[in-house]
Amino acid sequence: MRFEIEIRVTPREGIVDPEGQTIGQALDNLGYSGVHHVKAGRLVRFELDADDTDQARSSVDRMCEELIANPVIERYEVQIRSPETASP
Amino acid sequence: MRFEIEIRVTPREGIVDPEGQTIGQALDNLGYSGVHHVKAGRLVRFELDADDTDQARSSVDRMCEELIANPVIERYEVQIRSPETASP
Repeated sequence: MRFEIEIRVTPREGIVDPEGQTIGQALDNLGYSGVHHVKAGRLVRFELDADDTDQARSSVDRMCEELIANPVIERYEVQIRSPETASP
Repeated sequence: MRFEIEIRVTPREGIVDPEGQTIGQALDNLGYSGVHHVKAGRLVRFELDADDTDQARSSVDRMCEELIANPVIERYEVQIRSPETASP
């Protein structure tokens, strides 16, 4: 089965996030008010061949730990959609 | 009201995505098979004070067009959660 994978990588709480700070400052400079706690992160999407959702999740977790995220300073969330559950 | 905003910025179809290609190649080098169509993007999260969801959405759309995304080569998706609809 082919699964659609989306991984969201964000800085852990307490880790300095210069990109988020820069975006927040730029929005303020442009006149947008009421913006708080800007955080910047990364998004990785791909398709993955796997036997079932459990195998897909275990494989994606290993990819995240090994390559996609830096678990020391980043956390990641994984969303897995199988062809059956995929919304249009 | 304070809304939770999540913006996902991804390259438009047909736009070269060197970061996605690099991640795909690196996963392949590490022995992960069955990975297809890797796309890399950016994630921006913040909290926004607005009167209602419509005002929040209109404000976030302007932020995306003006600063957060480059509409020529990128598309963006906005997710808005109000405190009432926020899941735990």
